[in-house]
Amino acid sequence: MIKVGIIGATGYAGAELVRILTYHPETEIVHAMSKSYAGQKLTELYPSLCKVRDLVCEDLDTEVLKRDCDVVFTALPHGASAETIASLMESPTLKVIDLSADFRYRDAEIYSQWYGIDHCAKDLLQESVYGLCELYREDIKKARLIGNPGCYTTCSILGAAPLLAKGLIEADSVIIDAKSGVSGAGRKLVIDQHFCECTENTKAYGVAKHRHTSEIEQELSLLAREDVVLSFTPHLIPQKRGILATIYGKLKTPMSTAELLEVYREFYKDEYFIRIYEEGKLPETNHVAGSNFVDMGLVSDPRTGRVIVVSCIDNLFKGAAGQAVQNMNLLFGLPETTALDCPAFYL
Amino acid sequence: MIKVGIIGATGYAGAELVRILTYHPETEIVHAMSKSYAGQKLTELYPSLCKVRDLVCEDLDTEVLKRDCDVVFTALPHGASAETIASLMESPTLKVIDLSADFRYRDAEIYSQWYGIDHCAKDLLQESVYGLCELYREDIKKARLIGNPGCYTTCSILGAAPLLAKGLIEADSVIIDAKSGVSGAGRKLVIDQHFCECTENTKAYGVAKHRHTSEIEQELSLLAREDVVLSFTPHLIPQKRGILATIYGKLKTPMSTAELLEVYREFYKDEYFIRIYEEGKLPETNHVAGSNFVDMGLVSDPRTGRVIVVSCIDNLFKGAAGQAVQNMNLLFGLPETTALDCPAFYL
Amino acid sequence: MIKVGIIGATGYAGAELVRILTYHPETEIVHAMSKSYAGQKLTELYPSLCKVRDLVCEDLDTEVLKRDCDVVFTALPHGASAETIASLMESPTLKVIDLSADFRYRDAEIYSQWYGIDHCAKDLLQESVYGLCELYREDIKKARLIGNPGCYTTCSILGAAPLLAKGLIEADSVIIDAKSGVSGAGRKLVIDQHFCECTENTKAYGVAKHRHTSEIEQELSLLAREDVVLSFTPHLIPQKRGILATIYGKLKTPMSTAELLEVYREFYKDEYFIRIYEEGKLPETNHVAGSNFVDMGLVSDPRTGRVIVVSCIDNLFKGAAGQAVQNMNLLFGLPETTALDCPAFYL
Amino acid sequence: MIKVGIIGATGYAGAELVRILTYHPETEIVHAMSKSYAGQKLTELYPSLCKVRDLVCEDLDTEVLKRDCDVVFTALPHGASAETIASLMESPTLKVIDLSADFRYRDAEIYSQWYGIDHCAKDLLQESVYGLCELYREDIKKARLIGNPGCYTTCSILGAAPLLAKGLIEADSVIIDAKSGVSGAGRKLVIDQHFCECTENTKAYGVAKHRHTSEIEQELSLLAREDVVLSFTPHLIPQKRGILATIYGKLKTPMSTAELLEVYREFYKDEYFIRIYEEGKLPETNHVAGSNFVDMGLVSDPRTGRVIVVSCIDNLFKGAAGQAVQNMNLLFGLPETTALDCPAFYL
Repeated sequence: MIKVGIIGATGYAGAELVRILTYHPETEIVHAMSKSYAGQKLTELYPSLCKVRDLVCEDLDTEVLKRDCDVVFTALPHGASAETIASLMESPTLKVIDLSADFRYRDAEIYSQWYGIDHCAKDLLQESVYGLCELYREDIKKARLIGNPGCYTTCSILGAAPLLAKGLIEADSVIIDAKSGVSGAGRKLVIDQHFCECTENTKAYGVAKHRHTSEIEQELSLLAREDVVLSFTPHLIPQKRGILATIYGKLKTPMSTAELLEVYREFYKDEYFIRIYEEGKLPETNHVAGSNFVDMGLVSDPRTGRVIVVSCIDNLFKGAAGQAVQNMNLLFGLPETTALDCPAFYL
Repeated sequence: MIKVGIIGATGYAGAELVRILTYHPETEIVHAMSKSYAGQKLTELYPSLCKVRDLVCEDLDTEVLKRDCDVVFTALPHGASAETIASLMESPTLKVIDLSADFRYRDAEIYSQWYGIDHCAKDLLQESVYGLCELYREDIKKARLIGNPGCYTTCSILGAAPLLAKGLIEADSVIIDAKSGVSGAGRKLVIDQHFCECTENTKAYGVAKHRHTSEIEQELSLLAREDVVLSFTPHLIPQKRGILATIYGKLKTPMSTAELLEVYREFYKDEYFIRIYEEGKLPETNHVAGSNFVDMGLVSDPRTGRVIVVSCIDNLFKGAAGQAVQNMNLLFGLPETTALDCPAFYL
Repeated sequence: MIKVGIIGATGYAGAELVRILTYHPETEIVHAMSKSYAGQKLTELYPSLCKVRDLVCEDLDTEVLKRDCDVVFTALPHGASAETIASLMESPTLKVIDLSADFRYRDAEIYSQWYGIDHCAKDLLQESVYGLCELYREDIKKARLIGNPGCYTTCSILGAAPLLAKGLIEADSVIIDAKSGVSGAGRKLVIDQHFCECTENTKAYGVAKHRHTSEIEQELSLLAREDVVLSFTPHLIPQKRGILATIYGKLKTPMSTAELLEVYREFYKDEYFIRIYEEGKLPETNHVAGSNFVDMGLVSDPRTGRVIVVSCIDNLFKGAAGQAVQNMNLLFGLPETTALDCPAFYL
Repeated sequence: MIKVGIIGATGYAGAELVRILTYHPETEIVHAMSKSYAGQKLTELYPSLCKVRDLVCEDLDTEVLKRDCDVVFTALPHGASAETIASLMESPTLKVIDLSADFRYRDAEIYSQWYGIDHCAKDLLQESVYGLCELYREDIKKARLIGNPGCYTTCSILGAAPLLAKGLIEADSVIIDAKSGVSGAGRKLVIDQHFCECTENTKAYGVAKHRHTSEIEQELSLLAREDVVLSFTPHLIPQKRGILATIYGKLKTPMSTAELLEVYREFYKDEYFIRIYEEGKLPETNHVAGSNFVDMGLVSDPRTGRVIVVSCIDNLFKGAAGQAVQNMNLLFGLPETTALDCPAFYL
């Protein structure tokens, strides 16, 4: 049994992690920590877990985690996360999967630029691996510290990867218009997440300056082997779960929808969690909500010379907790789909 | 491996059944039948199932089912269901779990009265067992034909059962005010289920004449050992899943909330799927949506002499497909929680 | 032009009041006050009002209001409201319409019992009139201080009034099961109103102890000329606007649906804002959302001897701001429907 | 009083038109026609209109309309619309405002190409005026037949117009990613509009081939005085009302957000219904839902050289019925804002 610790268990990503781990036969949650709810039962906040997983939240204590755990998932705000993880990584064997942005960057400079703070564990940044399993599986297997990708980025990078890796579109032509459910913003109390402000409402935010832009650019540039500077526009839509990214790129040479789909199928041919739709079909968020799948479809538009890719994930599952478990499975040599091989809720 | 057939696989209950069975290690779906979608892949309607369960719908053929299956789930309209099941039951060994109303009644007369048609398989009605596992577990284990209870009825009967079985409330005082998500009405195309007519809207319907009333009265009368005639008012609320029943009864003698909760805890002490809330807490539909749990809380009101019970289930899960699987587990001697021991989605 | 002041303009009831007054040809908003947003434009919070009504919020100042206004609407928390109004009423002519609970009670004792605080303006309580226009029109016309009824209470009292006024049901048999949209809980930041906690969720709350119970009992007792002690159960449903109350009562003598509807039609025959549905039809919240209408339908159930009334209002409109304007129209001798004669949004 | 006829009064656009006209002091609806609901009261479908506007639907009869009406609004499917209007226009004085696509095109060829049918009233196409009031006000005033623009197109064209009219962006760089509420798809019964399929779901559709593309291109090309071929991607989001279009264009020369906003403010300086947001703010659909406003904000992104415009309307109001009334006001020399000068619902 893998002994699991969770820091930040009471947030939405943390709770989803606990829920997913109830399906995992090889793990045992030995500590669920939360500064705000120390001493309270997790089921006070999530009565859905009653009888299935009754945990008591403990106050954050890295020494206890180092002593008792094989792996720790951290779901803390950026900045705070790096600090805590620096302490955890003093253990020679503990593995850490970080759901914050702190270990997703290869260049501390870029991180500082977009997050407005200095990175406080730059050396660990060298050691950490970007936890996008479909792209870095082999590195992840050997890693000890994983920077688990964000929800927008997972959806966007995987959706655009084949186009850039294969050099099919112009690097400066990429536009990603993404729509996210509200759970992506977490459980914090702000008026923007008040039911009456969200329901029957759609909005764009962070236009031309959302932090995830830099994470997407980093990875697509690596794939393209040239600098990719792109437009990324997140939107909030009135649903709980699900991200849909509509990705636009200018084809270097004309290709049909069928040809492009063939490229995608080939690129992802060994990936269980990636489902490429046949021509004429496109994914919708309820095809993936509650699952670890990344669904993609595309259309080539000869009128404009563009390809339009639609990519969908569940922001809490593949976009956070599910991907974290997928990383854990890789870290511990378990079958990658353990606890993750479930269909979406659909309803 | 239990060989499973499903008739009506493309409706919402059918699709939920397929989804739940993906978690069941002892079953194999050998036939998924649908008159309207014969020849089509189930994943055309529910792309969420792609890669996890790719089934092709076949036209309805009871001979094939009798030949190949150990158990058949039927999700057909009432009337049509009894006819099909009469044919299935000609097999000496096949077990049938019927999600329609056709085999939920002990008295064909009552059925005719509320459903407006004559029952076409009255003899089977004698043999069938009402599939409310928490009340009829031992009978179910020995049965071959199960009348799987409806969603409103499961929530209502289990919520009121201890009060009536223990004779704590006046039999003529029961009022059940129930609120259901839209998936309970199924996948059929009627203007009432159009998104724009449902969202931001709540309504009562079938007031004083909803068919489930008779099913609830039948079971509560048996528990009370006297005739229970009650008011049952269903409401449609703008959400997909979940039923919440608010149950009112006049206490014969004053009892405190704590005393009543103790009665409930005792009554359901061996029931895994029933969760009794502690004093001061009440269940909500997102505590159970996506799970087989029945959550209950209650308040005794000394001002009015009434007890108010709040009971919640997921209408598609415990209220249909999950309960059907629970019945199957009992029929085949499997652990009752197989494939059903999951927490609600919550988010 | 009637000079209007609003205290608490930035809450949901306040904003709805501003919106409704844009249709009112005889009023001018001269002061919109808000402690939390003093100095800010109301359109910062409600950009929907841009160009139509650009107001700057001022800090609360009763002297300014007494100097400049003919009428002040107060939307403050209970307790705070009475204190502020005591100051406002020092003006000999100013009229005040209070949207809090502070002036809805005839008996300060009852108020203290349910609200847990002492009433700080007991003498004004004698002068104030309960602003349910359909029942107290003549008193309102002569009043200077109006206790504007709450949303649940308006819906419940008007729905049950004919039954109790005419002595048709047993006074101890009344059960009101009410379902409310989330805007009824206001704009405050609490986790219960977070989008992800509300959407796809229904819950009961305040069972057997909600404060509105006492307001409903007060009014129904007056109508019945005997003490009415009842069960009132509020529920939160995932929509913005709308309340639906399902009201149960035991008929003293059997009456048909048609006979009862005739009683309702007669009772409300002069009321523009009350719409009685014909037999076989029941109101839904989207029939009234965005309007000042109170829609009612009912069913007599000979099986149980009960009548079930369904009553619907928009909680922000007839349940708060619209009713306040209706009261203002009466106070100033204007046609009662001024600014209020609009159909619901429906969509 | 202007005598108004409505064909297709029972659809969502028709019902919204009736609702808006309840605010119009200069009109009287003399005929509301509907093939499917002839003989039925409109309030059967929309009880929200009871007491405010009780109309009985009549069967379609163009002779009656020609005899009795000053203006007819037609909300019929394309194709059928042109045919009916050809008959209506035989009257020498009757004015017609068509909500279908049939009279929005300047070139019957383009229409045929995108709608797959031959235009059956080509000569009328010459006479008709594109009813986008902000761009064609003077032509509309003199017209007799108006092709009322669609919802996506109104939002998109107005949002992009200043950029193209002023030659600020490259004509081949335009991408419009639009998100629409479900009411845009009308009241028809298709599984895609079933509540359970829409709620908690977002999807793209008609990618690279949606018909509105041609209407947007027609108008933007005229403004740009060169051919504009663009990408238009519509999405369905889980809300009733509201369209948000995110518009991307490559700036020919760098311009700041402030400079671009100044261009927009100047371009629309006389337009009451257009609200340009200040730097740092962007519109959301609930700022406009229930109103005739078009809200716009924008961001210049020096990193990519692109401008991103966010444009919002209510699809049923400014995107259909409200714009139709605005056209009628122009046709009859009334103040353009008559019946339309209301703020959005917001809540």
